[in-house]
Amino acid sequence: MPSDGDRVREVRITPVAFRDPPLLNAVGVHQPFALRAIVEVVADSGITGLGETYGDATHLTRLRRAADSIVGVDVWHTHELARRVGALRDDSAGGDGTSGMVAASTADRVLSPFEVACLDIQGRALGRPVTDLLGGAVRDRVDYSAYLFYKWPGHPGSDHDRWGAALDPDAIVAQARWMVDEYGFTAIKLKAGVFPPEEEVAAIRALRAEFPGHPLRIDPNAAWSVPTAVRVGADLDGILEYLEDPVAGIDGMARVARAVPMPLATNMCVVAFDHLRPAVAADAVRVVLSDHHFWGGLGRSRALASTCETFGLGLSMHSNSHLGISLAAMTHLAAATPNLTYACDTHWPWKDPADDVVDIVQPGTLRFTGGAVTVPTAPGLGVDLDRDALARLHEQYLTCGITARDDTAYYRRHHPHFDPTPPRW
Amino acid sequence: MPSDGDRVREVRITPVAFRDPPLLNAVGVHQPFALRAIVEVVADSGITGLGETYGDATHLTRLRRAADSIVGVDVWHTHELARRVGALRDDSAGGDGTSGMVAASTADRVLSPFEVACLDIQGRALGRPVTDLLGGAVRDRVDYSAYLFYKWPGHPGSDHDRWGAALDPDAIVAQARWMVDEYGFTAIKLKAGVFPPEEEVAAIRALRAEFPGHPLRIDPNAAWSVPTAVRVGADLDGILEYLEDPVAGIDGMARVARAVPMPLATNMCVVAFDHLRPAVAADAVRVVLSDHHFWGGLGRSRALASTCETFGLGLSMHSNSHLGISLAAMTHLAAATPNLTYACDTHWPWKDPADDVVDIVQPGTLRFTGGAVTVPTAPGLGVDLDRDALARLHEQYLTCGITARDDTAYYRRHHPHFDPTPPRW
Ligand SMILES: [Mg+2]
Ligand SMILES: [Mg+2]
Repeated sequence: MPSDGDRVREVRITPVAFRDPPLLNAVGVHQPFALRAIVEVVADSGITGLGETYGDATHLTRLRRAADSIVGVDVWHTHELARRVGALRDDSAGGDGTSGMVAASTADRVLSPFEVACLDIQGRALGRPVTDLLGGAVRDRVDYSAYLFYKWPGHPGSDHDRWGAALDPDAIVAQARWMVDEYGFTAIKLKAGVFPPEEEVAAIRALRAEFPGHPLRIDPNAAWSVPTAVRVGADLDGILEYLEDPVAGIDGMARVARAVPMPLATNMCVVAFDHLRPAVAADAVRVVLSDHHFWGGLGRSRALASTCETFGLGLSMHSNSHLGISLAAMTHLAAATPNLTYACDTHWPWKDPADDVVDIVQPGTLRFTGGAVTVPTAPGLGVDLDRDALARLHEQYLTCGITARDDTAYYRRHHPHFDPTPPRW
Repeated sequence: MPSDGDRVREVRITPVAFRDPPLLNAVGVHQPFALRAIVEVVADSGITGLGETYGDATHLTRLRRAADSIVGVDVWHTHELARRVGALRDDSAGGDGTSGMVAASTADRVLSPFEVACLDIQGRALGRPVTDLLGGAVRDRVDYSAYLFYKWPGHPGSDHDRWGAALDPDAIVAQARWMVDEYGFTAIKLKAGVFPPEEEVAAIRALRAEFPGHPLRIDPNAAWSVPTAVRVGADLDGILEYLEDPVAGIDGMARVARAVPMPLATNMCVVAFDHLRPAVAADAVRVVLSDHHFWGGLGRSRALASTCETFGLGLSMHSNSHLGISLAAMTHLAAATPNLTYACDTHWPWKDPADDVVDIVQPGTLRFTGGAVTVPTAPGLGVDLDRDALARLHEQYLTCGITARDDTAYYRRHHPHFDPTPPRW
C-alpha cells in the first residue's frame, strides 16, 4: 500500500529571469531577460522534485492555482494530477512564454512542470533515473542541434555581447563555426523569418558550403506565404533535412507539403493532441517537434511519440530559452524515446553559464560534448537545486522589469512600425 | 543507480490447461481444455513477477526463445525488453491461441507476458499496485460484460455440463439471466457467427426484451458478408451499443460503417499498431477492443489508448479464455486507462472456479460483484502463484492431449464437412 509519504505536501513556484541576447525572429527580438518558473514539489516524505516551465505572469497565476489543486495527490498518480489541473478549466490564451508563436493546450502547459517534478520524486525515491520511469534509456547520449539566430550586436543601450551581430550569411556561418567548435553539434538549424527569404536562403547555402556533412534546417515561424514557401522549398531541394513551419496552419502546411521535395516539420500547427487528427488527415507534416513543456509532461510526450510512430511521423524536439532543469527533463525524455531520431533543438548556447539554478549531480552528465549530452543515471532528473542561485535569479526576475515575454513590443521600441502579422513574405 | 537486484535472473514458462465448455463460434467450437502459458520472471533480488499468455505449442517455442533473450535485462527497461524480443524476428504465423481469429503482431504477442511480469516485479519491489506504474487507477472497480455463447450441452461423449445447451434465443436469454444474476453484469455481448443471422438477431431482440437497460453487443467474428452486415445493422438500429467485427478487413468494415447506424468495434481488423493508420484513414471503426496479450503488454496498451483518444476512437477490451493472472493484468490496465469507458469482455464465467493458478492477495479484490471487479491495491498485480494448482493445471496440460487451440478441427470431428471460410452468410 502506498504510504502517505508519497503525497504532495507543498508546492513552491519561483519565477526567475536570466540574461538573454537579442535573438531575432519572425515576431521580434528576445528581451534582455528570459523568464522561467522553477517548480518544487515536496512530498510528505520530504523528497523534493523539480520542474521548469514558462515564467510569464499569466502562466504563473495558473501555476499557483494548479499548485493549490494538487496538494494531497500521490506523486505516482499522474492521471489524477492531469484531472485536477484539467478541472481548473482555464482555456484563456497567453502566458505561453513563446511570444504567441505556440498556441498549445493551456491545461497541458500547466500540467507539465508538476508531472516532471513528480517523476523526479519517483526517481529519487526509487534510486533510479527518470529514464527508467519512461521504459529505460535507449541511448546514453542525446544529440542536440546548433540553433543559429540572426541577432543584434547587443541589446540597445548596452555593450556588444560576446557573440556580436549576425545579420548576414557570413556572420551566420561564423556563428555556426563557433557553436560547432564549442559544442560539437552535428546538425544545424537557422531561425529564419527575419529577413527576406532570399537572404535566408543565401545563409543556408553558405552553411551548406561550410558544413557539407551537417543536416540543415530552417524555421521561419510561419512568416512565409504558401507561394513563398514553395519557392524556397524548390530552391533548397537536396539541402534541407527538414523545412520547419514555413507557413501558418495545417491547411497551409499541407499545401506546401504537396509542393516541396523535403519533409515539413512543425512546432506550430501540431502542438496539442487535438491537432494530430486533422494534421494526419491532411498529411500536413512529416516531423513533429515535441516539447514536454506544452505536451503535458514526459508521460504524455511519450504518448505523442508512440502516436507519431504509429502514424509514420518523425519526431524531433522543440526548445525555448531554458535552464538546467529543462535540459535534464528534455534529455531524459529524448533518451527514453526510441523514435526520437532527430537531433533536438536547444537554446543552451545562448545562456550565460553563470545563469542557472541547478547543480549537476553526476560529473560528466548534462554537458555538451560532440554535440550531445550524456544522460544522467543518478536518481531522478540528476540535478539538485542551488538555492543561492535560485535566489539570485529570482532577484533578477524582480528587478528586470519583465513579467511576460513580448518579443514584438521589445522590437517595436526600436522599430515602432514593425508589423509581425504573417505572412511577412 | 539501479542495483543488480532488478535484473532478470531466470524465466520459467509453464504451459497449463483448464477445462473449457463447448462454446460455439464462427470457426468451430472450444475444445475441452483451454491452454495458457504461465510466465514467471525472477529478478536477481528474488522477487518473482507473473505473466499469462497463450499456451499453443508454436507460441511456447517463441516464449522460450524470448525468455532466453531477456536474461540480464533490468526489469524497468521495457524498451530493451521489446528490442530483444523484436530482434528474434519471428514473424511466422500461428500460435496465437485464437484459432486464427486474431492475426496480431507476433513480437507484441510474445513480449506481453514478460512485460507484465516485469511490471509485477516493479510493483512488488515498490510496494505499489501495477495501476500506479500506469499513472494510477482512475476507478477502483472495473466493469466487465456478460459474454454469451451458443453452446452444445456438453462435450461430445461427456455428460451435459452445468450450463447445458444454448442453441436458440430462449436458451441465450436463460444464459444471460444466469450470468447477470450470478455476476451482476450491466452489459451483454453475444458471440455470434454460429447460426444464420436472422436467428442471432432474434436472440438479440429477445435479450433486449428481457434486459431493456443493458447495452447489447453482437460479435460474429467476421462471418458475414458486407450486404448481410448492412442488413443486420439496419435491423438492430437502436438496439446495439456496438456491432463487433461483422465482416473481415478494414475495407469491408469501412463499407459497413458507412451504411449502418451504430458504431463498429473490432478486435480483428485493428490488432496491431500498423493497422491504426489505415483504419483511421478509412474510418473503418469507432471502437477498438484492446487486449494487452496481443498489443505488447500494459505499457503499449496504454499507448494504444492514448492514440485512440487522440483519434476519437472509443476503447473497449477483448478477452480470450484466461486465468487469474490475466484477470488481474486486464483489471489493472482498465483501471488506469481513463478512456476505457466500455465494459470489458471476459470469459471468466465459463471457467471452473477450481481451475486457476493463483491466490488473490487481498480479499474482496479480483472478484465479480455488480458486474465489476474491485481493483487490487496490493503490491504488483495482487495475485500470488499457487504452486500446487500450477502443478495440477500443468499435469492437466500434459494429459489433455491438446497442444494448440483448433476450434475448427474439433468441430469437424463431429461435423466433418464444416467450412468456416468467411463470409459464411
Ligand atoms: Mg520551430
Ligand atoms: Mg471480438
